[in-house]
Amino acid sequence: MRQSKLFTKTIKQAPKDETSFNAKTLIKAGFIDKSSAGIYSFLPLGLRVHNKICDIVREEMNAIGGQEILMPALTPKKAWQKTDRWDSFDVLFKVIGNNKREYALGATHEEIVTPLVQKHIFSYKELPVYIYQIQTKFRDELRAKAGLIRGREFSMKDLYSFHVDKKDLDKFYEITKDAYFKIFNRCGLSEITYLTYSSGGDFSKYSHEFQTLAENGEDTIYICDDCKIAINQEIIDEQKVCPNCKNKDLRKEKSIEVGNIFKLGTRFSNAFDFFYTNKKGQKHDIEMGCYGIGPSRIVGTIVEVYHDNKGIIWPESVAPYQVHLLDLEAKKTSEDIYNKLLKNEVEVFYDDQDDKSAGEKFADADLIGIPYRLVVSKKTLEQNSVEFKKRDKQETKLVKIEKIVEELGGNK
Amino acid sequence: MRQSKLFTKTIKQAPKDETSFNAKTLIKAGFIDKSSAGIYSFLPLGLRVHNKICDIVREEMNAIGGQEILMPALTPKKAWQKTDRWDSFDVLFKVIGNNKREYALGATHEEIVTPLVQKHIFSYKELPVYIYQIQTKFRDELRAKAGLIRGREFSMKDLYSFHVDKKDLDKFYEITKDAYFKIFNRCGLSEITYLTYSSGGDFSKYSHEFQTLAENGEDTIYICDDCKIAINQEIIDEQKVCPNCKNKDLRKEKSIEVGNIFKLGTRFSNAFDFFYTNKKGQKHDIEMGCYGIGPSRIVGTIVEVYHDNKGIIWPESVAPYQVHLLDLEAKKTSEDIYNKLLKNEVEVFYDDQDDKSAGEKFADADLIGIPYRLVVSKKTLEQNSVEFKKRDKQETKLVKIEKIVEELGGNK
Repeated sequence: MRQSKLFTKTIKQAPKDETSFNAKTLIKAGFIDKSSAGIYSFLPLGLRVHNKICDIVREEMNAIGGQEILMPALTPKKAWQKTDRWDSFDVLFKVIGNNKREYALGATHEEIVTPLVQKHIFSYKELPVYIYQIQTKFRDELRAKAGLIRGREFSMKDLYSFHVDKKDLDKFYEITKDAYFKIFNRCGLSEITYLTYSSGGDFSKYSHEFQTLAENGEDTIYICDDCKIAINQEIIDEQKVCPNCKNKDLRKEKSIEVGNIFKLGTRFSNAFDFFYTNKKGQKHDIEMGCYGIGPSRIVGTIVEVYHDNKGIIWPESVAPYQVHLLDLEAKKTSEDIYNKLLKNEVEVFYDDQDDKSAGEKFADADLIGIPYRLVVSKKTLEQNSVEFKKRDKQETKLVKIEKIVEELGGNK
Repeated sequence: MRQSKLFTKTIKQAPKDETSFNAKTLIKAGFIDKSSAGIYSFLPLGLRVHNKICDIVREEMNAIGGQEILMPALTPKKAWQKTDRWDSFDVLFKVIGNNKREYALGATHEEIVTPLVQKHIFSYKELPVYIYQIQTKFRDELRAKAGLIRGREFSMKDLYSFHVDKKDLDKFYEITKDAYFKIFNRCGLSEITYLTYSSGGDFSKYSHEFQTLAENGEDTIYICDDCKIAINQEIIDEQKVCPNCKNKDLRKEKSIEVGNIFKLGTRFSNAFDFFYTNKKGQKHDIEMGCYGIGPSRIVGTIVEVYHDNKGIIWPESVAPYQVHLLDLEAKKTSEDIYNKLLKNEVEVFYDDQDDKSAGEKFADADLIGIPYRLVVSKKTLEQNSVEFKKRDKQETKLVKIEKIVEELGGNK
């Protein structure tokens, strides 16, 4: 992509009413736009990051047998009444349409997926099934001050599992834990992300969250460094020791919740009279689990944890492009290198702008945070080279023009 | 994909309150689920079709320089007040959140994209730009009886273009016409789709629709067969002859609107005080165009026009899978063929169900409508072959097992 063609620019000043680091930085770097409090547009660079995260999530959900669907955002009142959540779910946006039809904007989709699966599953032979979607969710948060971390509109992968019994649910629950760590690993977050014991809400004693350490995090967790698991502050009074090794020496940290998984039991299947027929021909309860992860929230989390005072430092796996090529008045060679990188299927963002100074281009590159920076200038061309720098390192080196593709390949 | 693993089944009876052919058929075939009137979920098979159409649309938008973004569904009241559409846009779903914050659910996005682009574009040097998204739209239609053709929640690709003057807008407007016909061609609809003159609404004398012939269509058009263009009934009183050749002999047909393009002029840029600076340093009007196409509506349209009394007949380009492999008690060979097709990257849907009769499998295959059907049975194996049939043809033939991949390749 040529930067001269990209319609977004880096912006000097984020909106005054934006207080979160992630949103301020992403707005300045041209990744997102603020539409209203807690509601953002993804611009071309931001959408690329978001879609890469969605692709990682999708691959790992497919790998454990997830079947992707897409449910609506407008969900009927009567479904929420069946589960007694129409009045009790406090962040539901409610919509009244023509002829007094009432809907909730989907904040979660148990009320939709349960009767949907019920139309297709009747027998033990057809279970278990794992159904997921990646979709826009809506929650009328009272405070929406954390940028992409807690928006009123955000993306969510929500997986729902349906089982013949608790044992089968337990087995799959452990499989999803592994899948979630694979996702966080691929997004560059696994080393600072902890499986965290949390309140089970209406459903069970505990649920599990995945909490990523971050100075500006809204959550507080207590970490057992021996087991690499944590306890959410909300249950620390009832669970004061590591649930695994009983360690009392827990480390308190601020964090961001990047995923959560719940055993729902029969809470929703029973509400919809959804049963299956077992081997003996008897009606039997269906056990459910639900598993959430927010791709847009992960975008914000990565910015909160991977940055320096100049801008974002994207992990390669989710970076909008792999290489930022800067032309400093050496257009002919820069164009050749750009075309060569394209031909070699390197994802390259090319600063071909003629009306920007070298200083502006360097500042843009640091702010935008693409992993590899290549600078082409008269000085580098004297040695038939380009200047090569990783975004997360200070050192630069010269790389011969004919060795660029190889150098990039060797670094991936 | 193994049919035994797919959680959806074909369904004997569509919901009684569903009157449209496309939704009834897609529900019975397991492509969609009805959540409430005009609101559907895409199930795995349906989502595959929908995503293939989205990919075609995306490729053609990128090919003409479109830059993809993703705007929110919750759009602030004040933006709609700026353009005087808060009260006048009759199908807006309105949402009142906490602290009396008011939103409209995005029914179209001029109110969002215009101030967004305004933050990044200042000079003639930066124009034109073409910005699009593929996103869920919401319209509170009084009648939602046409299935995916007119839903209350549906997918839309909406492209917005920004130009220095009318001449540049006119030029790009013609480019989008070509791109739209490429899209309909790739979706198998171009031969029965007509560029149709329609009312320009508030914006200009005419807009243009793309209307696909269909018995159950909600629209009526008058076709000039010489020019292959049409006139929408809504303007036939003012435009009684072909706008191109003045032909009076127009053929009246029922049709479905599958796309529309508008010249917006300065209606929205002026409302947001969005101007650019021209070469002389003067403030100048920005001309806008908008270009819509509905992927979910195209799914429904294809079903309306490509079917027989047994089920759907998908064009290859958008079919959920290319090959439907039916095992009729020849499991070992069927498995081998399935694995071989997967290895050769053929998109194969494999009916490996043990508890279904041959008749049920044939009926499913016809209903689901995958382009190529391969049947493996003891009888075909006697000749070391499988039975090969195209969904849209009556004839069957035997194809030697070792020639299957070649045969499929030769048919694509």
